[in-house]
Amino acid sequence: MNPRNTMKLSNLLQNSGNKFLQCKLRGEMAGNGFNLTSSAGYSTARQSYDADGKISKRIFADYCIYKGKAALSAAPILPTFSKMGSGFTKIDRRGSIMLTFRPAIGDRKYDSEKKQLFALSVTEVGSFISMGPGDTREFFHDPAMQSSAEGQVRKSLSIKPFTDGYFISLSVANNILKTNERFTVPVTSAEFAVMREAFSFALPHIMGWAHSTNQLPDSPGEDSSKVHQQLGSASEWDR
Amino acid sequence: MNPRNTMKLSNLLQNSGNKFLQCKLRGEMAGNGFNLTSSAGYSTARQSYDADGKISKRIFADYCIYKGKAALSAAPILPTFSKMGSGFTKIDRRGSIMLTFRPAIGDRKYDSEKKQLFALSVTEVGSFISMGPGDTREFFHDPAMQSSAEGQVRKSLSIKPFTDGYFISLSVANNILKTNERFTVPVTSAEFAVMREAFSFALPHIMGWAHSTNQLPDSPGEDSSKVHQQLGSASEWDR
Amino acid sequence: MNPRNTMKLSNLLQNSGNKFLQCKLRGEMAGNGFNLTSSAGYSTARQSYDADGKISKRIFADYCIYKGKAALSAAPILPTFSKMGSGFTKIDRRGSIMLTFRPAIGDRKYDSEKKQLFALSVTEVGSFISMGPGDTREFFHDPAMQSSAEGQVRKSLSIKPFTDGYFISLSVANNILKTNERFTVPVTSAEFAVMREAFSFALPHIMGWAHSTNQLPDSPGEDSSKVHQQLGSASEWDR
Amino acid sequence: MNPRNTMKLSNLLQNSGNKFLQCKLRGEMAGNGFNLTSSAGYSTARQSYDADGKISKRIFADYCIYKGKAALSAAPILPTFSKMGSGFTKIDRRGSIMLTFRPAIGDRKYDSEKKQLFALSVTEVGSFISMGPGDTREFFHDPAMQSSAEGQVRKSLSIKPFTDGYFISLSVANNILKTNERFTVPVTSAEFAVMREAFSFALPHIMGWAHSTNQLPDSPGEDSSKVHQQLGSASEWDR
Repeated sequence: MNPRNTMKLSNLLQNSGNKFLQCKLRGEMAGNGFNLTSSAGYSTARQSYDADGKISKRIFADYCIYKGKAALSAAPILPTFSKMGSGFTKIDRRGSIMLTFRPAIGDRKYDSEKKQLFALSVTEVGSFISMGPGDTREFFHDPAMQSSAEGQVRKSLSIKPFTDGYFISLSVANNILKTNERFTVPVTSAEFAVMREAFSFALPHIMGWAHSTNQLPDSPGEDSSKVHQQLGSASEWDR
Repeated sequence: MNPRNTMKLSNLLQNSGNKFLQCKLRGEMAGNGFNLTSSAGYSTARQSYDADGKISKRIFADYCIYKGKAALSAAPILPTFSKMGSGFTKIDRRGSIMLTFRPAIGDRKYDSEKKQLFALSVTEVGSFISMGPGDTREFFHDPAMQSSAEGQVRKSLSIKPFTDGYFISLSVANNILKTNERFTVPVTSAEFAVMREAFSFALPHIMGWAHSTNQLPDSPGEDSSKVHQQLGSASEWDR
Repeated sequence: MNPRNTMKLSNLLQNSGNKFLQCKLRGEMAGNGFNLTSSAGYSTARQSYDADGKISKRIFADYCIYKGKAALSAAPILPTFSKMGSGFTKIDRRGSIMLTFRPAIGDRKYDSEKKQLFALSVTEVGSFISMGPGDTREFFHDPAMQSSAEGQVRKSLSIKPFTDGYFISLSVANNILKTNERFTVPVTSAEFAVMREAFSFALPHIMGWAHSTNQLPDSPGEDSSKVHQQLGSASEWDR
Repeated sequence: MNPRNTMKLSNLLQNSGNKFLQCKLRGEMAGNGFNLTSSAGYSTARQSYDADGKISKRIFADYCIYKGKAALSAAPILPTFSKMGSGFTKIDRRGSIMLTFRPAIGDRKYDSEKKQLFALSVTEVGSFISMGPGDTREFFHDPAMQSSAEGQVRKSLSIKPFTDGYFISLSVANNILKTNERFTVPVTSAEFAVMREAFSFALPHIMGWAHSTNQLPDSPGEDSSKVHQQLGSASEWDR
């Protein structure tokens, strides 16, 4: 990150009334061209695939919250689709909202190599955006569930209210490595409002509904009178 | 569904704190390539038609809720349009949110051949998304209304609150077959929040407003000064 | 409207628990191909123009509410744009939500020739969608404002709550024709929820913000390093 | 602005029950083709760049509120993106909501040359749209933060409730020019509802999430079985 970028970033954060300002990611310092996200974070996700099974160059636009002890960033992960032989397309894997935590390792520096991920599922996003004042949430993930390694790594994300916002915390207990990490990021009400609005916006996209409601035609249709006859029994009853 | 998919699905459900986990659709076991939806469900709906009357390959992305006694899935059905001779397009049939209920027939298995459908109309979707805490809803459909078969099949969908969510129930009374089926799916607050948000997103699409506000030009226009004169009397009054 | 359509429509209305069902528009009976909207309503608006000044074939998808004494339909009217010599585009006329009232003239028949229009402005739409329980609204329009004919025609739209919904009424007093018409449509809570959601969706479109946030590129850019330098002083301050 | 436009504008404002009507921007009177925005306002922003680094002709559709002592307009500023060598795209600078204040200098005239800007950041927009009844907000900007000129110019935006709406005020203290300007615009509840809805709509666009969820494919993909294998370790864990 060059000095001009540093200033821009500090302005940005100052403007939001952020008292915990500690920025620069370690990945960025290595000059890999990322401003706010370590390149390591999405090393295998750089190519995503759209509803037609084509490669789509990802656009990175994480929402980042930098605080004194850790940074939290959030980004939508789109679903993947499979094209069936019969010509239609079905969702193959749902998307998610990927939360990334990075510990602070100095003044405005965060360590991307020690980052931990937590992918909010569609239903967890529903739970998140429906939080009322004073509500709390806790989600548990076990990456190895129902395999022989079940229970070896346990992740827990908690969201708890404080005076003007929420503490969002991630605990990762790894029985194999004998490690137990915990990240806590105080998120202001304004930042939480951004997350809630952005997650609500993203929800139909990660579910695949934004795709199924915006499909484009790809071949000329028949004349419209025929069309309606054909569709005559498509719905709950013939209407 | 192969074993790897089974694990994925169970992870997914476990993550959302789902205690009623019972999955695999019967249709899926027949190897027809659907993960979460029976192919039978949309046999005549595989082709939909866009605002230009062209065939549009449908994208399937149902939101599925698997519980102990039944599974509930929801998916938007887009409206159909007719192109008029005069060059403009009008909505022909409104879309809906199709709810599909399938009874459980074993451990993580649901019977797609015994599924029942209920298509929420635009106004019923409005009623659904405006539910406040403690509210209930009940909708009645008669597939044969105003025909000689009126009253022979009666469907009733009810939505009733419980401690942490809603019971969504479908009753189908068929006087001809002398059957009376009832499905009840307990939907958590988080799942209900997903439905509410997704239905709200889908509403302008199933009404056709998403189409009428996003129309693309298909021929070069005249110069802009002329344009405005022409449109001078298009609205409530000449302004 | 052919008999099959009549049944479809009655099903649709029955499903929403509508007790006031009276349908068929007169325009439809003349066989002009409209199901739910009279062709007369948009005679000069059949062509609209997009942000590039090109002709765009309109898509009609009115939301219609049929009640005993009158029918109310709502549809978004998009803004119009002008392309400036310098290559950018500005909004020329804001859009609106057009409300159309038609009096009932028999069983399921409404008279499109006696219809009256009321175009909700952007700010009136803001007022509509922010209505809380028990709130009322009243809007006044004078089509001839600030011309010599000012005050000759006065339109007043009122929205008043009842037990389960709102009465939406339009009064049109015409001093020249010595007429005074009044339409009142009881709108259920469910129908009102559809209007509120659909109007909220349409708002950024009728303001032109949906256009200004979704603009497409139309010429290859320079290399990105140059781009950023050029934009260096585009915002509030040089950052 | 020609006389016909003047009438249109006055109608528009009258319709929204605006008692403070004072319009015509000075920039407009100079015949530069802007209706509602001075050309000066975006002199360097006329070209924006999309996610592919291409020039995109901006579309101007400010939301303008004209009151007795000042006018306030709001418009979304899109983020800028950089295309990386590796083929993916990252956000380079976040967008904002640009607020522009202009003092009144006569009957329906506002002075664009004395305008002041305030760019609401993503988090400030989150703060704005989450305001509850009776809430107040105050945001501080220092254009020269962390440079030698820090503290020389201070901008403060405050939002305070009154009976039927909010006072939105901007103070600009310039120590170098020894000036201290203050603009206050009374914004009705209806106008505030428009702002809130439009800002909520714009938020995912100025964050770049609208871009990252709508990316288009630009090259043919491999067959879908291969696709899924490749993506196998893209998310939080292998699922």
